[in-house]
Amino acid sequence: MEMKDVQNSPDSRNIDLERVGIRGLFLPLDIKLKGDGYQRVLAKISLSADLPGTYRGTHMSRYIENLNRWSRQKISSAEIKDILWDMRIALYARRVEISLEFKYFVPKTAPVSGQEVQMDYNCLFRGIQHDEDFIFLLGVEVPVHLVCPCSKEIADYGAHNQRALLRVLMEYYPEHFIWLEDLIALLESQGSSAIYPLLKRADEKYVTEHAFENPKFVEDVVRDVVVQFRADSRIRWYEVECLSAESLHTHDAFAHHREEKEPDRGRGAIIGSFWI
Amino acid sequence: MEMKDVQNSPDSRNIDLERVGIRGLFLPLDIKLKGDGYQRVLAKISLSADLPGTYRGTHMSRYIENLNRWSRQKISSAEIKDILWDMRIALYARRVEISLEFKYFVPKTAPVSGQEVQMDYNCLFRGIQHDEDFIFLLGVEVPVHLVCPCSKEIADYGAHNQRALLRVLMEYYPEHFIWLEDLIALLESQGSSAIYPLLKRADEKYVTEHAFENPKFVEDVVRDVVVQFRADSRIRWYEVECLSAESLHTHDAFAHHREEKEPDRGRGAIIGSFWI
Amino acid sequence: MEMKDVQNSPDSRNIDLERVGIRGLFLPLDIKLKGDGYQRVLAKISLSADLPGTYRGTHMSRYIENLNRWSRQKISSAEIKDILWDMRIALYARRVEISLEFKYFVPKTAPVSGQEVQMDYNCLFRGIQHDEDFIFLLGVEVPVHLVCPCSKEIADYGAHNQRALLRVLMEYYPEHFIWLEDLIALLESQGSSAIYPLLKRADEKYVTEHAFENPKFVEDVVRDVVVQFRADSRIRWYEVECLSAESLHTHDAFAHHREEKEPDRGRGAIIGSFWI
Amino acid sequence: MEMKDVQNSPDSRNIDLERVGIRGLFLPLDIKLKGDGYQRVLAKISLSADLPGTYRGTHMSRYIENLNRWSRQKISSAEIKDILWDMRIALYARRVEISLEFKYFVPKTAPVSGQEVQMDYNCLFRGIQHDEDFIFLLGVEVPVHLVCPCSKEIADYGAHNQRALLRVLMEYYPEHFIWLEDLIALLESQGSSAIYPLLKRADEKYVTEHAFENPKFVEDVVRDVVVQFRADSRIRWYEVECLSAESLHTHDAFAHHREEKEPDRGRGAIIGSFWI
Repeated sequence: MEMKDVQNSPDSRNIDLERVGIRGLFLPLDIKLKGDGYQRVLAKISLSADLPGTYRGTHMSRYIENLNRWSRQKISSAEIKDILWDMRIALYARRVEISLEFKYFVPKTAPVSGQEVQMDYNCLFRGIQHDEDFIFLLGVEVPVHLVCPCSKEIADYGAHNQRALLRVLMEYYPEHFIWLEDLIALLESQGSSAIYPLLKRADEKYVTEHAFENPKFVEDVVRDVVVQFRADSRIRWYEVECLSAESLHTHDAFAHHREEKEPDRGRGAIIGSFWI
Repeated sequence: MEMKDVQNSPDSRNIDLERVGIRGLFLPLDIKLKGDGYQRVLAKISLSADLPGTYRGTHMSRYIENLNRWSRQKISSAEIKDILWDMRIALYARRVEISLEFKYFVPKTAPVSGQEVQMDYNCLFRGIQHDEDFIFLLGVEVPVHLVCPCSKEIADYGAHNQRALLRVLMEYYPEHFIWLEDLIALLESQGSSAIYPLLKRADEKYVTEHAFENPKFVEDVVRDVVVQFRADSRIRWYEVECLSAESLHTHDAFAHHREEKEPDRGRGAIIGSFWI
Repeated sequence: MEMKDVQNSPDSRNIDLERVGIRGLFLPLDIKLKGDGYQRVLAKISLSADLPGTYRGTHMSRYIENLNRWSRQKISSAEIKDILWDMRIALYARRVEISLEFKYFVPKTAPVSGQEVQMDYNCLFRGIQHDEDFIFLLGVEVPVHLVCPCSKEIADYGAHNQRALLRVLMEYYPEHFIWLEDLIALLESQGSSAIYPLLKRADEKYVTEHAFENPKFVEDVVRDVVVQFRADSRIRWYEVECLSAESLHTHDAFAHHREEKEPDRGRGAIIGSFWI
Repeated sequence: MEMKDVQNSPDSRNIDLERVGIRGLFLPLDIKLKGDGYQRVLAKISLSADLPGTYRGTHMSRYIENLNRWSRQKISSAEIKDILWDMRIALYARRVEISLEFKYFVPKTAPVSGQEVQMDYNCLFRGIQHDEDFIFLLGVEVPVHLVCPCSKEIADYGAHNQRALLRVLMEYYPEHFIWLEDLIALLESQGSSAIYPLLKRADEKYVTEHAFENPKFVEDVVRDVVVQFRADSRIRWYEVECLSAESLHTHDAFAHHREEKEPDRGRGAIIGSFWI
């Protein structure tokens, strides 16, 4: 006996839906490293496709089957595009979208002792295939250390400081490529100091003094990133935020900015936002 | 001795920032009820203003002082506008934005026994004042019960079902007003059944059977909301999502749609998104 | 027609269960203030009872009915005891347990400017009625500011500092009573400095310098609390933890200690733990 | 110039602290598989040691150095013991404790179509070395599908059902060993049905019907686990909980039980609790 395909039944409301899919699926994936090789990561995955008004439902099991084929491949932006093309064909979709959130480890060397430990960064690959247009977005959260310029200026000694998150979501032009490793390195030099998993006493002395000499507001951090992103011709659209866990308050302070190099393209509306 | 105002110092980078402010501040606030009176809620608050390129930093303490004045006022969209106007003047800002997230309680009556208990809904008031343009956004998450039409169709007995969240973010035209109570009532009739804090056995029998007679995909729920929102001339822009905690999977299924009645206004890019 | 009461059916496995109940229910409740009056809070509630081996299930709807009666009462430890007695009778239980988690606001005055704003603290009321034995536990999380003594000592200038949480769960003897307000005041004097929602520049100068003069490890904070709790004859059992969001690392540092004044009573095993 | 070792300075309060350490450190680790090989996981790590009253502070950097040495080793309970011994020697500690939380993937085969996808389970390795006593705890959360027996009984058709979490924390005797794979397999057969990442229509029909024939309360699930754990002579102490995301309510229902085979040993107080 044939089982009825309820999802495939016609729908009289005739409403095209922008996105139908799954969220919160975890799979181990292999992300291509700068240099040779790959890194096995734990990926949290969202995957969606548009649904034409003529069909009642989508076939969610095909999303999983499709993803499953990629569990032993090395993944970067090119493979994200391939995943979306497979999805378009399998689902007869005009618009498909995928987000992979994962912790990515990069070796981090203490500034004086030279001791090295892996440090984790929250990263995002997001791909959107809209008709013939492919958008690839790269996101990363880099923790930094911030010393408050106002507190340093007005106090006779000391200055409050804290952990902050510097977050970027960006699109680069398809003829270019930006490695996570390079973006992370650029961002973690924007705080009063970088943050390290392991600091011996000589390192702690160095970082404390270096940060104290380099006080920054969240506004300063974001502007310094904007200066560099404006000068970087590979970048087409970006959003940057610095969120500081103020140590004298229980609320956070933040500065946020987004910008498109070609202003009339409406990138922001298509892309959505990483965190806001 | 005068203390230096570091935030007020000139900034040579000359970069206007879109948003500078605070996030994660909690205050008790009084939200106006439909009918008389108000409800004391626990509000999680974000508040930001743009920062002209000529200044190095904003004055975060003024944000708190400003909010503090509103802690004993009854708040609705008109007061959100007043808060933003006070902020604009205090900060010489062109664009100010506030978000209040809070749990709002509405009495919920069991369908057969008639027993009544308060039920909580996650709600959002967001206001954006951009030059002379005021945008007020109303958001709400309504939990519903969903029975899967496919599972019901193909199985000889039973059907998997689950808790789902129906989420809306919307803008209505300023000459209109939509109460949270009315929006919640509209949304919770969209599932296979509403959800209740308290069900006696006679209620549970009723709800189980009623839901089984009314199976719905996440796609169905979103489309049924779209039909009503398109027909409602008070609504200018909206985003709707149904997120289902699939009981046969560990990932969630979702359908999402957003729409602007006046398509060339670019509302989506200004507004951002509540949850995606 | 009579509906079958499945929960009430006999169970052949004959296994007594320690706790059966509900978790994650939200209700507005009124907590008694020190001084007159009360504070309306948003309470997240867990409620459980033991289940004798002879019954298949408990009646969850009775938990909600019972709680619902308390939604307009002023609540303190005496009322927690009353709630548990009602539950024992309604459920024929030997052991019932309730936890209320809520944000509680206390006015906080900036140290120089004298400006006052409400500040929120995560609090816990937990009651356990075990046969004739009633245990009431008071929990609170107080954010404090910590300056690192090691960083201050080894650096020529500056010292890293950060936001930390000082958490206490305690039982006092039933003939005594400890107000949340007093416990919060005691705890927030244990950091390098207290934390404030609103600081004007003169306040920020004071707090920065005061904290710098008073550097403390998480170990110091916990030991200073232990000294006071050991000397306080009202306290029978306690657990204290200081968790510091290290500003030079992405992981947290913590110190934790628990102690019972009458060591052979096994309080820890009955009570469980607030956060670990 | 020698930098002063502030942590090593004597402390006059003379208070032994139970636990001082780090929490929330992420590292990639390799967990031994049943059968050959290992699985690379993302581990969230807590690590603590007691601190004698004579010293002011611990040396947190040594915790990280120690962990770092294990980042390329295959880890199981024996290696957890080795890590703790290294820590004891490095820190002159009497009591050291480590917790590793990680998602562990196991291939899961759909019941009719036979399609296989990796499914993730939240797992915990916890080791406590207390003087000469080594305790190893194994924890796992297995999602299951539950059909409500009461709803099925009283309704003429249908029955509400939902996703639930079955959580276990257990200690086995050191002469035995229990694989995560075996514990997961045992637990996921305890629900009305197991849960799968990928179900084709024939699978969905099977699972829906199978679950409907097998309704269970959270109490039933916990008791069925208790029956098996009591009969398993490898297990010394355990805690089991079933937490159900009730689909007709917004709160969860749960049943919880813990038991020690040798009741006078006070295991519960030493071990603490995984999630409560």
